[in-house]
Amino acid sequence: MKIIVDAFGGDNAPLEILKGCAQAVEGLDIDIMLTGREDEIRRVAKENEISLTRMEIIDAPDVITMEDHAGEVMKSKSNSSMAEGLRRLANGDGDAFLSAGNSGALVVGATLIVKRIPGIKRVAFAPVLPKNQGCFMLIDCGANVDCKPDMLRQFGIMGSVYMEKVMRIKQPRVALANIGTEEHKGGELQHEAFAMLKNSNINFVGNIEARDIPYDAGDVIVSDGFTGNVILKMFEGTAMMMMSKIKGILTKNLPNKLAAALLLKDFKIMKKTMDYNEYGGAPLMGCAKPVFKSHGSATAKTFYNALRLTKAYVDGGVVDEISASVQEYKEKVNAGEAE
Amino acid sequence: MKIIVDAFGGDNAPLEILKGCAQAVEGLDIDIMLTGREDEIRRVAKENEISLTRMEIIDAPDVITMEDHAGEVMKSKSNSSMAEGLRRLANGDGDAFLSAGNSGALVVGATLIVKRIPGIKRVAFAPVLPKNQGCFMLIDCGANVDCKPDMLRQFGIMGSVYMEKVMRIKQPRVALANIGTEEHKGGELQHEAFAMLKNSNINFVGNIEARDIPYDAGDVIVSDGFTGNVILKMFEGTAMMMMSKIKGILTKNLPNKLAAALLLKDFKIMKKTMDYNEYGGAPLMGCAKPVFKSHGSATAKTFYNALRLTKAYVDGGVVDEISASVQEYKEKVNAGEAE
Repeated sequence: MKIIVDAFGGDNAPLEILKGCAQAVEGLDIDIMLTGREDEIRRVAKENEISLTRMEIIDAPDVITMEDHAGEVMKSKSNSSMAEGLRRLANGDGDAFLSAGNSGALVVGATLIVKRIPGIKRVAFAPVLPKNQGCFMLIDCGANVDCKPDMLRQFGIMGSVYMEKVMRIKQPRVALANIGTEEHKGGELQHEAFAMLKNSNINFVGNIEARDIPYDAGDVIVSDGFTGNVILKMFEGTAMMMMSKIKGILTKNLPNKLAAALLLKDFKIMKKTMDYNEYGGAPLMGCAKPVFKSHGSATAKTFYNALRLTKAYVDGGVVDEISASVQEYKEKVNAGEAE
Repeated sequence: MKIIVDAFGGDNAPLEILKGCAQAVEGLDIDIMLTGREDEIRRVAKENEISLTRMEIIDAPDVITMEDHAGEVMKSKSNSSMAEGLRRLANGDGDAFLSAGNSGALVVGATLIVKRIPGIKRVAFAPVLPKNQGCFMLIDCGANVDCKPDMLRQFGIMGSVYMEKVMRIKQPRVALANIGTEEHKGGELQHEAFAMLKNSNINFVGNIEARDIPYDAGDVIVSDGFTGNVILKMFEGTAMMMMSKIKGILTKNLPNKLAAALLLKDFKIMKKTMDYNEYGGAPLMGCAKPVFKSHGSATAKTFYNALRLTKAYVDGGVVDEISASVQEYKEKVNAGEAE
């Protein structure tokens, strides 16, 4: 398998990206195609003694920054490492594309260059996040601020396929993020999406209140991108705030420090299970070929995890499975069995 | 001061309500008017040796349950403890009304019976919540699923007045919940609300990402009711999940239990500062007279806190202050200085 990597995406590019790639070539048995400034890639690799074995480099002079407007990926920055990587993916030069760069640009670039799966209305960011036990997918998490009910239906299907094929959860429970569990809760978007999800060929378990999201109430949480982004960041912010309070207690004074020494290992495990970085990033669901987004602040470890998940995204045949679901739905509509 | 209390609102009514009231008569030096089934109130008070000193009882035979449709407060349940209490408040028989009952019914009842402050478009639930340091108000938290930009402007003003007059925060920082800090982030609602809040006579500090809400980035967080409800419940759910993980560590085995004994006091303090119940509930902002909602699961302690905050709501002259702000804005609009 060959994964195309944006060597200049994210705050720690290219060093941490190259480190993560070198580890993944070994650990995951993959080939890599790097896009970015070839000179700099070779220089950084040499200075840091990073092997470039099984890595091909495609020179791309421009870099999309976090401040760039999303559209620039197609305009003034069409020679960027991101745009070049997406073109290579579209051309079939690799099996997937991974970037830690500008999310907005990645959505625009992937949509226009790689294109969507025929029938899929919008691509969606869908991180897999830790919960009390195990993990869940939150879809969409910010790619689409305004959503139509049918988009939410498709998010549910795409999330269900991913969690089954990549995370190996049988019959993933799909739930709609809402302000109450009763069917009539929420606004028009939720009412219509509820009805559509109920009639879909997935394990839809109904509405879920945000309070229950961190618990084991759903494997796929469906939401518009605005709400999903708020859920993600509230989760992150609250968890971080709690962890800092715990740290405050454990380091408050000498007696506390002594007691903390005994508990440190367990608190470290807890922190690790809550660590967003362990999950590497988020697939961009709905693209015609696998595109994966790693965190802007990705370190080598995060990037390695992102490569691992990107590989699983390819191995799981997620794109084909979603295509088949869309096709099946279309046939149902044509046969008058669905709207 | 006389506070009208719905003696039959919430899961633990009337016992916990009566206990909280008896403590408040002493502790807060207030008079209370109870609405509800007089026989039952007297029986429960007698059986539990709760003094009814300084409490007047207004008999009301019906009870609004959590399952009742909100509109029933005006229809089949117009003789309920809630409807009767709201009528008494509207008639000027007391200074404020407090209920731990059905939230939806309270919004409908308060809007129709007590009415809104002239010029205020919608009432809003606005709990004051703990954050890393101190507290913040989240407005709206679920009374209005769909909002217009001008409603968010008014939420900002009402929240600012409350935090200044009741919580004694000078020039409260008002922030708009959004998916990024830049002015162009979010959807149409956020764009328009941003412009309006910016032109209001409050300390508007711009957009806030959900990640920063638990930190000290704003004293009033403005949001539509759907998003606010998700923020509230995500905050609650994540905090509860983390607390249960901590508990798991502290009780895992004997060495951990021994170490935990030394830290228990500090963790208890942490739990207390994160405890929603400490804050008693949420004012229903925008009513022409102070209406306060306590938690459905309110215990005597929660209810006492709710009575304390209801008293502060009256003492702060919040309603008059909001009326003055609305009037001032109206004059600006008439003079062509605002839209």
